[in-house]
Amino acid sequence: MKRRTFLEASGTAALLCTVGGAKLESVSLEEVEEADRAAAALTRKRSRTTQDRVDKLTFTTPEPAPGGQKREYWIQARPATWNFAPTRRDQWMDRPIRGRRTFRAFAYQLFSAGFGRALLPPLIPGPTLEAEVGDTIVVHFRNADTRFNQAVTLHPHGVKYTPDYDGAYDGDFTRDDGFVSPGEEFTYVFECPPGSVGVWPYHDHGPNHTLNTLRGLFGAIIVRERGAPRPDVEKVLFLHTFPPQVTKGIPRVIQCINGRSAAGNTPTIRAKVGQDVALHVIGGDGNFHTLHIHGHRWKDSRGGAITDCPTLGPNETITARFKEDNPGRWLYHCHVFSHQDAGMAGWYLVDP
Amino acid sequence: MKRRTFLEASGTAALLCTVGGAKLESVSLEEVEEADRAAAALTRKRSRTTQDRVDKLTFTTPEPAPGGQKREYWIQARPATWNFAPTRRDQWMDRPIRGRRTFRAFAYQLFSAGFGRALLPPLIPGPTLEAEVGDTIVVHFRNADTRFNQAVTLHPHGVKYTPDYDGAYDGDFTRDDGFVSPGEEFTYVFECPPGSVGVWPYHDHGPNHTLNTLRGLFGAIIVRERGAPRPDVEKVLFLHTFPPQVTKGIPRVIQCINGRSAAGNTPTIRAKVGQDVALHVIGGDGNFHTLHIHGHRWKDSRGGAITDCPTLGPNETITARFKEDNPGRWLYHCHVFSHQDAGMAGWYLVDP
Amino acid sequence: MKRRTFLEASGTAALLCTVGGAKLESVSLEEVEEADRAAAALTRKRSRTTQDRVDKLTFTTPEPAPGGQKREYWIQARPATWNFAPTRRDQWMDRPIRGRRTFRAFAYQLFSAGFGRALLPPLIPGPTLEAEVGDTIVVHFRNADTRFNQAVTLHPHGVKYTPDYDGAYDGDFTRDDGFVSPGEEFTYVFECPPGSVGVWPYHDHGPNHTLNTLRGLFGAIIVRERGAPRPDVEKVLFLHTFPPQVTKGIPRVIQCINGRSAAGNTPTIRAKVGQDVALHVIGGDGNFHTLHIHGHRWKDSRGGAITDCPTLGPNETITARFKEDNPGRWLYHCHVFSHQDAGMAGWYLVDP
Repeated sequence: MKRRTFLEASGTAALLCTVGGAKLESVSLEEVEEADRAAAALTRKRSRTTQDRVDKLTFTTPEPAPGGQKREYWIQARPATWNFAPTRRDQWMDRPIRGRRTFRAFAYQLFSAGFGRALLPPLIPGPTLEAEVGDTIVVHFRNADTRFNQAVTLHPHGVKYTPDYDGAYDGDFTRDDGFVSPGEEFTYVFECPPGSVGVWPYHDHGPNHTLNTLRGLFGAIIVRERGAPRPDVEKVLFLHTFPPQVTKGIPRVIQCINGRSAAGNTPTIRAKVGQDVALHVIGGDGNFHTLHIHGHRWKDSRGGAITDCPTLGPNETITARFKEDNPGRWLYHCHVFSHQDAGMAGWYLVDP
Repeated sequence: MKRRTFLEASGTAALLCTVGGAKLESVSLEEVEEADRAAAALTRKRSRTTQDRVDKLTFTTPEPAPGGQKREYWIQARPATWNFAPTRRDQWMDRPIRGRRTFRAFAYQLFSAGFGRALLPPLIPGPTLEAEVGDTIVVHFRNADTRFNQAVTLHPHGVKYTPDYDGAYDGDFTRDDGFVSPGEEFTYVFECPPGSVGVWPYHDHGPNHTLNTLRGLFGAIIVRERGAPRPDVEKVLFLHTFPPQVTKGIPRVIQCINGRSAAGNTPTIRAKVGQDVALHVIGGDGNFHTLHIHGHRWKDSRGGAITDCPTLGPNETITARFKEDNPGRWLYHCHVFSHQDAGMAGWYLVDP
Repeated sequence: MKRRTFLEASGTAALLCTVGGAKLESVSLEEVEEADRAAAALTRKRSRTTQDRVDKLTFTTPEPAPGGQKREYWIQARPATWNFAPTRRDQWMDRPIRGRRTFRAFAYQLFSAGFGRALLPPLIPGPTLEAEVGDTIVVHFRNADTRFNQAVTLHPHGVKYTPDYDGAYDGDFTRDDGFVSPGEEFTYVFECPPGSVGVWPYHDHGPNHTLNTLRGLFGAIIVRERGAPRPDVEKVLFLHTFPPQVTKGIPRVIQCINGRSAAGNTPTIRAKVGQDVALHVIGGDGNFHTLHIHGHRWKDSRGGAITDCPTLGPNETITARFKEDNPGRWLYHCHVFSHQDAGMAGWYLVDP
């Protein structure tokens, strides 16, 4: 079977994406390879001829506000073999997950100072960056790609940054932050003004961002008020997918929470009655989702109304925060039928 | 034509679903039948080996708070022949609705105490459960399925319940509430704490929930403040679809409000100038919708901003509440083009 | 290649639509032509036999409230050759846009009083209608269609109007406002009560509204508090698409902002540090979108929470309003991957 036919037979929605120099609309496996090749062939450039006056602006690197700290992270992006269902079972549906469960992902990995040693394996999502109002977040970023051979970045939401630290490929207007080639490093500096309190995604925004973000290059940033206590239980949950274009041949869309699919593989969250619980849910793909937690309801973080099933879009965050009062085993899941049934679900276990 | 080809030709999006023991991704009519057979073959079980400590918890059945009442309902789930367009016409588009308009649905039906006699026919949506803060809602539930031969449940949103009354199939961790076989009964007890004020869906959450919910097993719960007056005009509106997998052969997605398709079949709502009007709109399928009412605008029930076209997701509720001030014939409809044009629309008639 | 096959090969989602007298579900190019022919064959009618008592109501034309003004506009709807990418380049992705870039659109055009002379070319979106609380908006509307040969209208959101000025085709219940044939004129009068403050879409709501709205018949209404100052920088941004059914043969969905596709063609917005900036973003097609502005965050106009990527649905508006504090070149884009990568993106340039 031709690969395009294979994708169509798998019922996969067309994945549109473009990379600098290449136009790719209905994405077959060959086209994914073409996108990767096109991205691999790109070189950093910054036109001197097309510039606007704003492109000539220079910026100073921000320092923490008085009393604030510099929160430093060493993070690399690297290929990784990823298993989306280590237990081989869907506990909710009580069935085995058959077929190949691994593929080549692209993930952020946390290191000790100066890239001394890996503190964690490459993970999906990547390490959570934490700061308080007035701090700066400094990310020493290394592109350790040895496989996909293309420039990637780290683009943050929610925090403040100058165009020098945007982490976005901008074509002819790209600064150094928007194109970190394999083997290169770049240090990002983000500010945390009062308006940045919240939980936000970061992700690749290089020239092949859609594919590389779908491959796993995303993580979360938490900014708190100065001195604010952490909730007793706090968890970031990315709702996202690994499509066939990313898994290269698994003939269905893998519906995931934090890189894993189906209850028993996705995060099992534990809490106790009386605890202050905060679940930060982020749309991690190009789809819209909702979050339902059985046995619970909470004030919607966006408008204050009581909800148990709010809608969220790509790279939007909602927080379900409540004082735990209901012991037992509970499902949490996206309530889009085709998402929940294909693995976007997990367990929330509450002790009395 | 092979059935799968037929579905593809009908432009139907793949309907993903899974049932315990069977994996079903791109759902053809044969696969629907396979899902039904798989669900029919399931038996209730609760593993003693895989349990977590929360699975060993026992719970007491809640009683009404002081001053609260026990609101008892007798409801059965049963197959029903359903006509989504009794008038045979789309009044908005002024055209006949041709072809078959009936199919075998699965619907909740209200009975008198002790299942004495049917108070209503099986309806889509099912009977509205009403209560006030401090009450309990007691649903005596009977699975009267004689056709689909599978376990179903009644899972509520918004209210509080212990794991004994969740109404969710949980694989090996399923309690009695999550698997009510044909011919069996189960009594659910839900609490109405202050945070549950609002309008919420309930629906099947058994092992074949996506198919059976799409077949019609859903309804609404209204929880009010103690002693709160009802609005002068109050209507629950489910925005949902009957896909070909459910209608078994009608080659298009039937876009519905409350089980009917197209103005003249969907609810025609009447009000008078000066009345307090509340329309509670619930996402009843796996899609995202908006609600537009011609000639009207209101404070969004989630954030307070003025709106006339808010977004809502699967099993999310928005309420359009306003003092009526604009007489005449008005359309109300989902503003997703492909939904409104295929029947997700109705009339709102206002007398001076 | 047959046209239907061509559409399917282009990965286009089925576009459902109906017109009075014709049912059209999976829309091929032939079916678009059939819809146009069906709409062209319709004649205005108003049944005397099917009427409800509300259909016999008569209404007086509203006048401005004391101190309010009559804001008069002369607008025609006409076919227009439209180029969605005049620069032939996608500046973000630094690539040429190859192939045909023009098609026959349908657009609103602003005229001087009494249709004296065209003040603007036909534009997508059409002219912005502005008013204050207490004003009436009077639109002298002319259907100057010489090509599609069908009735169109101007239906507003947000403002108040009687059934005489709804601008909606209602089948047998259609009043004169809902069916303006080629060559005919109709004068709409809308009221601006206090609850209509905000930014709203208007669009065609005639018998072939989905196709004609997708062809370009939409624009915005801004209602302000009496005497409220304008923001220093204010821009309405419609997020929408030109599908192959509209471009008649371009084999991909053109993702647009304000009728243009890809940075460099879409609006480049300029502001200065210290300015009060308001971007009003409206869903202009049948899809759901989000808006992300690099380097910025703001209070969500619907719930007050800080956001940089809110969700919006068809004909829903969100406003990103902030005091500008971050100079440089920034991307703004829908964060749905397949939308941003196919052109739903633009530049926001901030001077120090």
